[in-house]
Amino acid sequence: MLFQKVHVFRVKPKQELLSSIASYCREHGITSGIVIGIIGSVEKAKLNFIMELPGKYKSVEYPGPLEIVCAQGSVALKDNSPIIHIHVQLSGQDICRGGHLAEATVFTTAEVVIAELDYQLQRQLDSYTSLNELRQ
Amino acid sequence: MLFQKVHVFRVKPKQELLSSIASYCREHGITSGIVIGIIGSVEKAKLNFIMELPGKYKSVEYPGPLEIVCAQGSVALKDNSPIIHIHVQLSGQDICRGGHLAEATVFTTAEVVIAELDYQLQRQLDSYTSLNELRQ
Amino acid sequence: MLFQKVHVFRVKPKQELLSSIASYCREHGITSGIVIGIIGSVEKAKLNFIMELPGKYKSVEYPGPLEIVCAQGSVALKDNSPIIHIHVQLSGQDICRGGHLAEATVFTTAEVVIAELDYQLQRQLDSYTSLNELRQ
Repeated sequence: MLFQKVHVFRVKPKQELLSSIASYCREHGITSGIVIGIIGSVEKAKLNFIMELPGKYKSVEYPGPLEIVCAQGSVALKDNSPIIHIHVQLSGQDICRGGHLAEATVFTTAEVVIAELDYQLQRQLDSYTSLNELRQ
Repeated sequence: MLFQKVHVFRVKPKQELLSSIASYCREHGITSGIVIGIIGSVEKAKLNFIMELPGKYKSVEYPGPLEIVCAQGSVALKDNSPIIHIHVQLSGQDICRGGHLAEATVFTTAEVVIAELDYQLQRQLDSYTSLNELRQ
Repeated sequence: MLFQKVHVFRVKPKQELLSSIASYCREHGITSGIVIGIIGSVEKAKLNFIMELPGKYKSVEYPGPLEIVCAQGSVALKDNSPIIHIHVQLSGQDICRGGHLAEATVFTTAEVVIAELDYQLQRQLDSYTSLNELRQ
């Protein structure tokens, strides 16, 4: 597996981060890749935290502005549909939390780096976790 | 130096994260690489924090479930033995801490990305820090 | 866009992290790249947090030692001058904060990974944010 193309792009103020990344991937035909990083800031964000198995999440909303300190994740296919799975770290001077990115509205910018792979990453439902896990 | 091969793999529930990564590297002959990222969740984890010099650490155990927000690090050799050095960021809705990954038990998944290098990273004991530091 | 050369280097104790990275980039002719990661520890650090628009930051100093859990960012040019934009996550056992890296003094080490790009990243002043944003 190799990084075959690196995409660096900006998501602008007031845009929703996750759907903007999904749009970018759709427009550029990216179905398999690694989210190398995201930095910037959000005016608000919603993170999911796993609570118990099978896959039960709690969503928490955070008012901003908060820094996007970093993010990691991937783009993969499940049954031919793309799944963008990103964890993001947010911080202000008074609070610092990270988790599964459910949604976030960009404040100043989000500088996104995605490296496309020359191999198709796939997800499938895992009966133990009830989540869409990487297939190996 | 180039990224010559990218490895994307899942560490499954109940597995110890650091030793699972070490096993993967051993099986795939990886002795030099960059840990590009890890996301997932842990049911518990132990992190080390540097306290003073020469190299004195404090270990703290964290009960989960906690999100693995992100991780970075490397695989290198010291005297022909592999050293996997990873820092990891963990978060729940009530706590957020990151540090040197000592050990962690996977809760739902850990999606690991390692990019192999075409150049051998090496570590050596540093007399000032008393730690195994990257050799240049 | 491709990663054309990967740089892995150590910034040593007592060195200022951001200016050391700038020096490395200058010496190696890096004007366009992605900061893939930084791990290590700092004896102190100053982070900036965005407060309001147009671009108004608050700087906060953190005494260490603190772990450098991770970092992400880029090297780009604005009007032929390099801009190194890095967000960093710091943590001890009692505090965890991340933000825009203004300055930091290395405690034990900082292991920096930068992947050079074969395409020139550019920044320009954005009239809405009053910040130097990635040009697309």
